[in-house]
Amino acid sequence: MVGGGPGAFIGEVHRKAARMDGGIELVAGAFDINPRKSKQMGRELCINSRRAYHNYSEMIERELKLPQGERIDFASITVPNNWHFPIARDFLKAGFHVMCEKPMTFNVKEARALHKIVKQSRLVFGLMHNYTGYPIVKLARDMARQGDLGKIRKIVVQYPQGWLSTLLEKTGQQQAAWRTDPKQSGGSGCMGDIGTHAENLSEYITGLKIREICADLTIFVKGRKLDDDGNCLLRFNNGARGVLHASQISIGEENNLAIWIYGDQRSLEWHQEHPNYLYVKEPNGPVQVWRRGNDYVAVRSPAAARATRLPFGHPEAFIEAFANIYCNFADTVRARTTRTKPDPLALDFPTVGDGLRGMLFIDTLLASAKTKQKWTKMKN
Amino acid sequence: MVGGGPGAFIGEVHRKAARMDGGIELVAGAFDINPRKSKQMGRELCINSRRAYHNYSEMIERELKLPQGERIDFASITVPNNWHFPIARDFLKAGFHVMCEKPMTFNVKEARALHKIVKQSRLVFGLMHNYTGYPIVKLARDMARQGDLGKIRKIVVQYPQGWLSTLLEKTGQQQAAWRTDPKQSGGSGCMGDIGTHAENLSEYITGLKIREICADLTIFVKGRKLDDDGNCLLRFNNGARGVLHASQISIGEENNLAIWIYGDQRSLEWHQEHPNYLYVKEPNGPVQVWRRGNDYVAVRSPAAARATRLPFGHPEAFIEAFANIYCNFADTVRARTTRTKPDPLALDFPTVGDGLRGMLFIDTLLASAKTKQKWTKMKN
Amino acid sequence: MVGGGPGAFIGEVHRKAARMDGGIELVAGAFDINPRKSKQMGRELCINSRRAYHNYSEMIERELKLPQGERIDFASITVPNNWHFPIARDFLKAGFHVMCEKPMTFNVKEARALHKIVKQSRLVFGLMHNYTGYPIVKLARDMARQGDLGKIRKIVVQYPQGWLSTLLEKTGQQQAAWRTDPKQSGGSGCMGDIGTHAENLSEYITGLKIREICADLTIFVKGRKLDDDGNCLLRFNNGARGVLHASQISIGEENNLAIWIYGDQRSLEWHQEHPNYLYVKEPNGPVQVWRRGNDYVAVRSPAAARATRLPFGHPEAFIEAFANIYCNFADTVRARTTRTKPDPLALDFPTVGDGLRGMLFIDTLLASAKTKQKWTKMKN
Amino acid sequence: MVGGGPGAFIGEVHRKAARMDGGIELVAGAFDINPRKSKQMGRELCINSRRAYHNYSEMIERELKLPQGERIDFASITVPNNWHFPIARDFLKAGFHVMCEKPMTFNVKEARALHKIVKQSRLVFGLMHNYTGYPIVKLARDMARQGDLGKIRKIVVQYPQGWLSTLLEKTGQQQAAWRTDPKQSGGSGCMGDIGTHAENLSEYITGLKIREICADLTIFVKGRKLDDDGNCLLRFNNGARGVLHASQISIGEENNLAIWIYGDQRSLEWHQEHPNYLYVKEPNGPVQVWRRGNDYVAVRSPAAARATRLPFGHPEAFIEAFANIYCNFADTVRARTTRTKPDPLALDFPTVGDGLRGMLFIDTLLASAKTKQKWTKMKN
Repeated sequence: MVGGGPGAFIGEVHRKAARMDGGIELVAGAFDINPRKSKQMGRELCINSRRAYHNYSEMIERELKLPQGERIDFASITVPNNWHFPIARDFLKAGFHVMCEKPMTFNVKEARALHKIVKQSRLVFGLMHNYTGYPIVKLARDMARQGDLGKIRKIVVQYPQGWLSTLLEKTGQQQAAWRTDPKQSGGSGCMGDIGTHAENLSEYITGLKIREICADLTIFVKGRKLDDDGNCLLRFNNGARGVLHASQISIGEENNLAIWIYGDQRSLEWHQEHPNYLYVKEPNGPVQVWRRGNDYVAVRSPAAARATRLPFGHPEAFIEAFANIYCNFADTVRARTTRTKPDPLALDFPTVGDGLRGMLFIDTLLASAKTKQKWTKMKN
Repeated sequence: MVGGGPGAFIGEVHRKAARMDGGIELVAGAFDINPRKSKQMGRELCINSRRAYHNYSEMIERELKLPQGERIDFASITVPNNWHFPIARDFLKAGFHVMCEKPMTFNVKEARALHKIVKQSRLVFGLMHNYTGYPIVKLARDMARQGDLGKIRKIVVQYPQGWLSTLLEKTGQQQAAWRTDPKQSGGSGCMGDIGTHAENLSEYITGLKIREICADLTIFVKGRKLDDDGNCLLRFNNGARGVLHASQISIGEENNLAIWIYGDQRSLEWHQEHPNYLYVKEPNGPVQVWRRGNDYVAVRSPAAARATRLPFGHPEAFIEAFANIYCNFADTVRARTTRTKPDPLALDFPTVGDGLRGMLFIDTLLASAKTKQKWTKMKN
Repeated sequence: MVGGGPGAFIGEVHRKAARMDGGIELVAGAFDINPRKSKQMGRELCINSRRAYHNYSEMIERELKLPQGERIDFASITVPNNWHFPIARDFLKAGFHVMCEKPMTFNVKEARALHKIVKQSRLVFGLMHNYTGYPIVKLARDMARQGDLGKIRKIVVQYPQGWLSTLLEKTGQQQAAWRTDPKQSGGSGCMGDIGTHAENLSEYITGLKIREICADLTIFVKGRKLDDDGNCLLRFNNGARGVLHASQISIGEENNLAIWIYGDQRSLEWHQEHPNYLYVKEPNGPVQVWRRGNDYVAVRSPAAARATRLPFGHPEAFIEAFANIYCNFADTVRARTTRTKPDPLALDFPTVGDGLRGMLFIDTLLASAKTKQKWTKMKN
Repeated sequence: MVGGGPGAFIGEVHRKAARMDGGIELVAGAFDINPRKSKQMGRELCINSRRAYHNYSEMIERELKLPQGERIDFASITVPNNWHFPIARDFLKAGFHVMCEKPMTFNVKEARALHKIVKQSRLVFGLMHNYTGYPIVKLARDMARQGDLGKIRKIVVQYPQGWLSTLLEKTGQQQAAWRTDPKQSGGSGCMGDIGTHAENLSEYITGLKIREICADLTIFVKGRKLDDDGNCLLRFNNGARGVLHASQISIGEENNLAIWIYGDQRSLEWHQEHPNYLYVKEPNGPVQVWRRGNDYVAVRSPAAARATRLPFGHPEAFIEAFANIYCNFADTVRARTTRTKPDPLALDFPTVGDGLRGMLFIDTLLASAKTKQKWTKMKN
């Protein structure tokens, strides 16, 4: 693991998620940009002290020197955005599989480069678009892509948060500090951090691609350097219309990612904060609430069933969704390592293509925000 | 009453709402464009047969001939949009107060003309933006306008329906037929019919004005002539950003008008289908669910208390909100008639200025939908 | 109308409900036990002053002297419980149809007497168990009685309120005062006032009869004379088990009547505070949310359709349910008056048999609360 | 670990929960009553094959022979109820700390014996009443016990499930089979399995003790040997009244444990299927929705904060609550092992006293179900 030092948020989530199912063991890491803190974290995590490295370059170098069965199988990258690319690149070049936080890179150029590197390697690259790990999201995906909704006409997707409604980054709060710093976070704040989840979710579930964007990005909090709110109109490649809005200044909203997908036959609704339920609506019938863990869900979506640990009514949540991404990624790594064929369902995790889409989305948003023209095309 | 003949929807709602509180009596009407049906409706409503008129012109003429105490006090206009203006104009010119359905007129030109007529008369003009009649909407309005939210930063307002997801207008369904007919409905379908409610609600609660619009209007159902879906970005006169989307093709959505208002101190959330609840959110405190009919609501909003008939937990709904518009309108008419001073809270009903805003909103949407330019200014 | 004077709650609800649909006109009344207040109320209601009577006896006497077409058709009784019987009896004996508030009488003896009087007359007697007027309750009734649930095994029904969590009756609050006074209210407070609604709802929906009760009644507020909380176990005549609990000291509960009915094939759930929704659950399928006003509801339950005024998504609530009882009652009175056959669906309103059940329920509860024996039989 | 072999449900939950936070490592086990299956499970779990034992006696014997630093620190017991006592006893007698599934033993006699053994040892005994591990339950406990509710008057607690609405135990379903078998499960089915959770939750949150019970237990499914539904009235030691109902035949209910606690100042409401929210209600103020992970929660309840892994809006659920019991238990074991003083908050996990209460509850229920007397006292 690279990142996840003292005070980090997402690194510890990676660890809990990776540990939960017993198939992944944390054996080495460069946990902090400060080598002393990295060592300290290694001790806290009961890592062999020789494998708590001063930095990621040392980690690559030394791990490579270990006999093949003792080396790390893959590296998880959970550092601020500006470091994603060089670290991922170096691990890939050294022959290690990689799991990387999103957004994938600092900019589109890096994303294209990384895309190329991954494609040319035969390595497994996973991107932590964790919300696609929810079983019910997989059910929605299977329904939407297999025609249950008919032709998709409209998508509304939102991701409002309220935690940055004041200048939190000036109070020493580490999470706020790097996320609002253009040098670490990239060209966009709110939209890069969470708007990309909304984008990814809409494309993941429907299989459609955003083709045109009209964006209005705003910095509401004085003294902030990156957008803390963004609203946009979307047009998808099949002609569907969309609305995507995200915010970090929406007081009282916690992590309210939600999506509504309207087809000409049926529609779907899902809310991240209540992730075990999918609302399916028909033109002239009762609303159906599909609930995780039931047989009728498993029959409709083997992928949802595979991503389910507990019986119905025993709620599963964020960490489990995260762990599902790790499970599929690890099974794929394991198949590659053992030269066996992975379960086709194991291939269901976000990867470098999704990461490139995310970077293109941010790029297009930023271009759209600057122009007086209504629609800005999103490149491939 | 003009309109509300056999098969009409909203006319009967007007009647139920006006009757409920006992202060308004229906004594005359031209209920249908077909004189025979008008007469028939008069009989069904137990109206004196001499006052079930063949048409509205006859109604005006004959009512004027009655002694002053026996005449109608005001006329309710519940016909398709294209008839609103001439009928309202003629009743006003004849000296009758008027309650009119929305959208107020067929186009902006008529709206400006009507605005002038009302302002020059000393008559009372009410516009049935019924959703502003909910007690909890009045509570929200008092909170938002009196500073509880701090400076308003963002407004998200939606009005999705699904009933026109097929070409219902070709099946003989009367409601669908006129609403999708440009000759009766005006330049916009979905946005004119329900988008205007969303616009009105956002301005009513916050006191802000929409200044710029970027719209994407769509006709999804083949063979339809007017938009059945619309999404837009908004900019308000205080700098607040907004998202407004409405639809008639969102399968499974019934009448899902809802609004989220985010200030820099607090935020609000309200859903029309669950109208007795207001969600108030603070930066670091529990979400508050304010429930209609409680003392703490009355203390915060006398207008909400005035609009409340039942104790808490005894739900009030659509017809009661409608009736609240009528109550305030009728109290104002009564005060005008008796030359007394109305209760200031009685003046709280939508009127010709709101109607003009609605028409300007539609006009701006249509202009925006046609241009490649991102922002289109909304005139005053 | 008898009752509904200044400060009364339910009398005004009766008036609004009866007025709403235009088929019932209030023409006479003895509105208050204080004759001056009765007269005053008559003026406020614009009743002909000769028909605002000093008391109900005068009302009967004088109305009988009017020519048949001018007399009242029926009397609504909305006074405290101890007056229900004599007033109902006298109106019935004078040949008037009667609509009466619940609980029907002061005790079982009166209830049996009234039952006999109604059965021997050929008059229409309606009992205002208003919650059975909700369209969705009628849908539930049709489902439960027509076998959709299979054999019913268990019923949980609750009616918690919190408004009497302090000694409100000593503060001059009129509603609290008579409801907690054994001389006006009868042998039970909470259970008589609202427990009977829960009892009635469970029997109305399922068609089952409570056969045995085990009750625990409590007075929590010091100085109060009647139970303000009650919990009981039930056994129904088909072997089903039940739990019924009601309360007036459950702080924060408003009017939270709700019922869960479990069959061996399906189950139902309904909440009075969200009356437009019925949850239908199957062993291995999504939860179904049936929503008022849809075609699929009308097809399943013509009674629900008949009780519906507005399209889906336009919420209906308490007053409309109340009005539905009045509509059916009035249609039945009208048929009786005109010697025509009423629509069979019009006969769907609570009547004297339901009232007797309610009184027997209260009686059994009181007996059970006093005994150390687990089960107390409920008589017929 | 003893139990958790192939096909087991709760054993794997124990493993995931114990693994998640990195502080507990599974090193040995007797996973199945069939020694071959135990070995097989050991392999699947990558346990050193010498420590995948044939049975628990062998496990005790061999672990004791290992040097102290290499032995297991504690044993988790996740087998059917009838085996809890002998296994727990033997591990305790061998000097190992124990974490045990609930209900704690097969009957009260065993429970008293185990209670004595634990008290006489200086070992740590944890009981997996997992629902007390939810942060929001800890918040509720702190509120209720520290007086926020005032004097508690009424408790309603429910635990309906529907999975045993048919004779599932005859289909080969392993979970159903042992839970409905009196020889493995004990004298009660539904109430022993889940009713005890409801009992435990009500006492854990409030600090009150159930003193008297009036129970109605039923076997609805023909051919079943133990109750599959139970309803009871409760009286608590402070005079509070209660209703507790649980079921395994309530079709459509999944794992709907929920509790309502009414004090004379405030009331609380919590639902296990939506575990991140606590509803706090006051006599005259908005309902408050307290949401996990916020600062205001941490301030009110340090125990809730300690039990929280993720920021607000990132839902936590069942496994995390389970893991919280393990964390506190393991911290206490660690303190005992290292002879340090544990964090006082670490002592917050269910233990042998809670287990004895649970067995007494079942015993009292069974006695009450048989008698014609209304109230049966619950012994201490």
